[in-house]
Amino acid sequence: MATMRDIAQRLGVSVGTVSKGLNGGTDISEELRRSILDTAVELGYTNRRSQKEEHRKLAVFIENMDYQNVEDFGYEIILGFKTAANRDHWAVDIIEADRDFQNREKYETWMLQKGYSAGFFLGFSLEDPWIEQFHETSMPTALLDNYILLNPHVAMVGTDSEEAMDLAIGHLRSLGHEKIAFLNGSAHSYISDQRMISYLSSMARHHLHIDPSIAVYGYYVAEAAGYHVPGFLQKGVTAILCGNDRIAEGVIRCCKASGYSVPEDISVVGFDDIPLAQRLDPPLTTIRQSRSELGRCGYYTLYSMISGVAVSRNLLRPSLVVRETTTIARPRIATGHPEEKDSVLSVNPDLYKSFAIQRTL
Amino acid sequence: MATMRDIAQRLGVSVGTVSKGLNGGTDISEELRRSILDTAVELGYTNRRSQKEEHRKLAVFIENMDYQNVEDFGYEIILGFKTAANRDHWAVDIIEADRDFQNREKYETWMLQKGYSAGFFLGFSLEDPWIEQFHETSMPTALLDNYILLNPHVAMVGTDSEEAMDLAIGHLRSLGHEKIAFLNGSAHSYISDQRMISYLSSMARHHLHIDPSIAVYGYYVAEAAGYHVPGFLQKGVTAILCGNDRIAEGVIRCCKASGYSVPEDISVVGFDDIPLAQRLDPPLTTIRQSRSELGRCGYYTLYSMISGVAVSRNLLRPSLVVRETTTIARPRIATGHPEEKDSVLSVNPDLYKSFAIQRTL
Repeated sequence: MATMRDIAQRLGVSVGTVSKGLNGGTDISEELRRSILDTAVELGYTNRRSQKEEHRKLAVFIENMDYQNVEDFGYEIILGFKTAANRDHWAVDIIEADRDFQNREKYETWMLQKGYSAGFFLGFSLEDPWIEQFHETSMPTALLDNYILLNPHVAMVGTDSEEAMDLAIGHLRSLGHEKIAFLNGSAHSYISDQRMISYLSSMARHHLHIDPSIAVYGYYVAEAAGYHVPGFLQKGVTAILCGNDRIAEGVIRCCKASGYSVPEDISVVGFDDIPLAQRLDPPLTTIRQSRSELGRCGYYTLYSMISGVAVSRNLLRPSLVVRETTTIARPRIATGHPEEKDSVLSVNPDLYKSFAIQRTL
Repeated sequence: MATMRDIAQRLGVSVGTVSKGLNGGTDISEELRRSILDTAVELGYTNRRSQKEEHRKLAVFIENMDYQNVEDFGYEIILGFKTAANRDHWAVDIIEADRDFQNREKYETWMLQKGYSAGFFLGFSLEDPWIEQFHETSMPTALLDNYILLNPHVAMVGTDSEEAMDLAIGHLRSLGHEKIAFLNGSAHSYISDQRMISYLSSMARHHLHIDPSIAVYGYYVAEAAGYHVPGFLQKGVTAILCGNDRIAEGVIRCCKASGYSVPEDISVVGFDDIPLAQRLDPPLTTIRQSRSELGRCGYYTLYSMISGVAVSRNLLRPSLVVRETTTIARPRIATGHPEEKDSVLSVNPDLYKSFAIQRTL
C-alpha cells in the first residue's frame, strides 16, 4: 500500500511535487511527471486511488469492433455498461485504443494519469500490444471474451460457451440432425477455442460422431463460408453451426448457390443474434448473446473487483432464438471424394490432439 | 409481467383480497393466502417485486455447513455477503434450511411470503429437495458450488477449479513431482467433478502421465485418507493433492503412521485454506479460496441478476499458499502389487469414460 510519501522518498522529491505529478499540477516538467506516475504504478499506488464520488471514472477501451450505430455489435454493450455504471454514479469514457496508441502509452500509467479506476476492454485480440501488460497489471480490468491466466486483477466477461453449444446442438439433435458441421471464427482466439472445445464435448454428450474435417476455423466474416461450405456439402452434413451471424449469412448464400435449400436441405444456426439475423432470408435461427447484459455484466464485474473480489470468469447465459433456418433433418449422402476435399478444410489438428474429449454418458 | 389484478382474476377474488394475501393482512384464511401466493409465483409476480429501499431483503440459506464460529467455513462467506449487501442498503437474513423445512415449504412461495428479493445458497447438495425447484424458479438465485443447466435465473458462484488445479500441479511439477495422486471429496457433487476434470486436464497439460487408480473420490473428512493413502504409497506417488484441508490433515496423519515423512518423502497440498491449515504439523501448503470474496461475490452476482443480467457462472481466482508440506520430490519405487491394491481404490470409472482428456500441448 504505497503512499505519496513512498513515491517522494523513492524519487528524492517532496510530497508536494508528487502530488502535483499525480494531480495534474502545471509547474513541474513532463519528464518528472512521467517518473512520478511510473513510480506510482510500480509501487502499487493505483490500487489506493478511491476517488470521491463526483470524480469516479471508468474507461471502456474499444479496438476492432464497431459501436457507433445501433446495429453495431458494440453499441448495446457500451450502452449496457454505461447505464449500469451511471446508476452507481460512475462517469464512463469510451477510448478507441488502436495499436499505435497502445504502443505509445503504458496502460497503468495512462489510467492513473487520467484518473480512471478500472478498464473494460472490447474487441481486443491476443495480439494487441497491451495484452502483455495485463499479466502484470494491478488495475481492475475486465476483458470481453479474453482470459488472462493467474492475474487476480483481470477478469473475463463473456457468454457461457458450453451452454451455448449445448443449446444449438440439442436443438439440432431434437430435429434429427446427426452430421452437424461447425464453421468457427478465427483461430488464435481464446473464445474461438472455447467454442471449439464446447462443440466437441457437446457433440459427444449427444452421442454424435465427431468428424474433425467438418469442425474448422475460418474468419468472423461472411466470406469465410466460400472456403468451407462446398466441403461440408460433399461430406453429407445436414446442419451447419456458425461462429457468428455474418458467417451464417455467407453459409446460407453458399448453400443456395450450390443448389441446396435452407432449411429443407441444410439447417443453419448462427451465433450472436445481431439485428441482421432476423432480416436474412430465411430469418436466422441463432444463439443469442445479450449484448446489453454483457455490457452491464462488464460493469458489475469491475464493481466487484474494485471492491476487492478477484473474479476469474463471469459467464452469462446464452439463449436460443428459433427462426426459420432450422427444420427436421433430411438424410443426405456424402458425394465426391472426401480424401480429395480435405485439403479445402482448415482443420486445426492441435486442438483435436489437445482435447480428445469423448463423453459417453 | 403479472399484476395483482391478474392474480385476482385468476382466483375470482378482489384486488384488495390479493393485496391482503401478498402483504400479510390478517382477515383472510391461511388457505386463501396460500392460493394467492402460489398463483403469484405461477404468474411470475415475484419478478416485479422491487421493494422500496428500506424494505429490501436478501436471504442466505445454509444447510450442512458450519458458520457460527470464526473458524467455520461458512463464517466469512456470510460476513462477506452481509458486508457487501449492507453497504448497498440490503437487509440480510440467515435461514437454516434443513430437508424438513425444504419439504414443507415451496421455495418461491416462501420467498414471496417473507418479502425476499433473492436467495444465496450455501452447502446445498444435488440431493436437497429444493434443487429440483431451481430448474424452474424465476427468483434470482445464486448457488455456491452448484450449477443448474439452462435456467437464467440461477447462477453458480465458486472458485475457478481449472486455475486451482493448475496452481497446485504447476507448483508440484516445479519441485520435480510427476506421480501426483488426487484424493478428491465426495462423488455426486458438481464441484468434485469439476475438480476431477481439472486435475486430469492439468496433469495432461503438464505432460504428466494420468493413472486413474491414483485419482479417486473419497469424502470431505480426514477419515477418508485411511482408505486411500496406503494404496497411493504402494503405487510410489511422491505427492498427494487433497479435496480439502481436512482430507489433507488425514493424509499427513496416515503418511506418518506408515513411516513416511511429510514433506521429505511425500508432499501434500490441501484445498480451501481454513484456519486449521496453518496449525497442522507441518503447516499445510494449500490452495486458498477466499471465503470473504466468495460471500461478496454471492452478493454482487445476485445484484446483477436482480438488475436483469443472467449470470451463468461467476468464478473467482484461487491462490496458492506455500507453507511446509511441499518440497523437492524424492523419487520412490512402487511397492506391493498394484493389481491387488486396486480394490482398495474407489475410482469413479464413469468420469474417465466420460472425459478422457488427453492434452498434449
